[in-house]
Amino acid sequence: MNAAEPSVVRADPATAFDAWMNAALAEVERALDAWVPADVPAGLGEAMRYGVLDGGKRLRPLLVLAACHAVDGECDAALRAAVAVELIHAYSLVHDDMPCMDDDVLRRGKPTVHVRYGEAQAMLAGDAMQALAFEVLTPERGVEPALQARLCALLARAAGHAGMAGGQAIDLASIGKPLTEAALRDMHRRKTGALLQASVLMGVACGRCDAAARAAFADYGAAVGLAFQVVDDILDVTQESQTLGKTAGKDLEHNKPTYVTVLGLEAARRQAAQLRDAARAALGRCGTLRTGLLGQLADMVVDRDN
Amino acid sequence: MNAAEPSVVRADPATAFDAWMNAALAEVERALDAWVPADVPAGLGEAMRYGVLDGGKRLRPLLVLAACHAVDGECDAALRAAVAVELIHAYSLVHDDMPCMDDDVLRRGKPTVHVRYGEAQAMLAGDAMQALAFEVLTPERGVEPALQARLCALLARAAGHAGMAGGQAIDLASIGKPLTEAALRDMHRRKTGALLQASVLMGVACGRCDAAARAAFADYGAAVGLAFQVVDDILDVTQESQTLGKTAGKDLEHNKPTYVTVLGLEAARRQAAQLRDAARAALGRCGTLRTGLLGQLADMVVDRDN
Repeated sequence: MNAAEPSVVRADPATAFDAWMNAALAEVERALDAWVPADVPAGLGEAMRYGVLDGGKRLRPLLVLAACHAVDGECDAALRAAVAVELIHAYSLVHDDMPCMDDDVLRRGKPTVHVRYGEAQAMLAGDAMQALAFEVLTPERGVEPALQARLCALLARAAGHAGMAGGQAIDLASIGKPLTEAALRDMHRRKTGALLQASVLMGVACGRCDAAARAAFADYGAAVGLAFQVVDDILDVTQESQTLGKTAGKDLEHNKPTYVTVLGLEAARRQAAQLRDAARAALGRCGTLRTGLLGQLADMVVDRDN
Repeated sequence: MNAAEPSVVRADPATAFDAWMNAALAEVERALDAWVPADVPAGLGEAMRYGVLDGGKRLRPLLVLAACHAVDGECDAALRAAVAVELIHAYSLVHDDMPCMDDDVLRRGKPTVHVRYGEAQAMLAGDAMQALAFEVLTPERGVEPALQARLCALLARAAGHAGMAGGQAIDLASIGKPLTEAALRDMHRRKTGALLQASVLMGVACGRCDAAARAAFADYGAAVGLAFQVVDDILDVTQESQTLGKTAGKDLEHNKPTYVTVLGLEAARRQAAQLRDAARAALGRCGTLRTGLLGQLADMVVDRDN
């Protein structure tokens, strides 16, 4: 990675973080552009690229790269992990937006993939994006095979029935039903939290740390993952579609339980703040590792307005 | 694997093959039953299990296990590869049967997954089955990490844009259009052939062989993969739905180009016989390796009636 190292930038921490983030985002965008192929027959490559390029906050890739930075890990492997996790996230949005799921027409400020390319192509593009994630993680050279296997293991578990896909199934089944806060938390831990936590753990896997630090990183990832969803639920009722780049108010419209409907807006805001504190406290247990970027990402997750 | 070894069965080759196959099929079925979880919330596990258990010829798993047998490979790894490749195949059927694709109601003699569980659950079940394939390939112990990475690499490439998903996109785009034989072959090499060939190569990866033998196994896999599709196209017009366990005649109904529409029935039958010969010729280049089971699987692919 060519991303500027905060340690060599002589400026206040916020400026250094911004410089790191902009360099990291550019690096991820270049890698996505290079690794999501255009030259696939029958328009499939075009639909895949439309679904993942030029949009999104890239929070998961940033978590991978910041976690790798914390443990001074292998940058080439981390960049592959960053792209892979974003491909999984992007495919889930493509499928989630389809008529049989959330039936949404706007995503990242553009018409959704099925609106642009048709439902069949959208389904295939999502399927191919998931496969591509594992392809990106298993290059012929450049990443140690044992690390490839570890990254595949983390990603597969976070994406599948015990993680994201399982959470989406609970989400579907809970439309129009009252959920306890515990049930809501369980759903979001799977649906959004598992992949965000896996992003952190994949970055950490690219370097070395002891078991106590690894557990602390897992706690950090769990707290940030849940905070992300709580804030998402808040923004869904407080922001306009134009700011979000996706349809605002759709949880209410679809009669889905959220942190705001279950806790109320103020309690949801307090929850988000508590989760930020928990995330920062976890980083405090990582000893001398360079966790500054991860701390600032936790702030960004909670303070964002889209 | 506890499958009986043909070498120790004192009977004619066909009986020995049948004994091996029945033992292998039982082993694969037990592994699928054990590794596709039932205890997943919101009915997702039930839909996944419905989509992959109790049905199908299990040709891909048999190719994996027979190829592993040929190179005296690691049986535990091969069984995982067999299950993983069947999960990819089964997920592709679940998605392919959905209304936005082939819109089919019958598969493996049962209502399709979306008919039984709804479209949203079918899409999620397919997505989760793809992730599970990579989860099965990356256990915490029991399979060398380098082999895990190699198996993931082979499976991801065969399942994705350059393989199965890419072939399905071409298939979609070619409805109602005349295709040359070369274009039809390209489509089927990707859509069906890539995963069948990968099955052979994954089995081979579980053991050791030289580069010449590996190339021969790849040629065998390509020939069997194409033969499978040619025979599929023949059966689609010559068999009843009840025999096939899926809707017969649907290629014609959907106005899809097939080997029968492009070549005619008799030429398609000659093509299948030539591909069987090519597959057996490739095995002849594998030296002293135990390729008898693979040879008989090639016969089974061409001689089957469903």
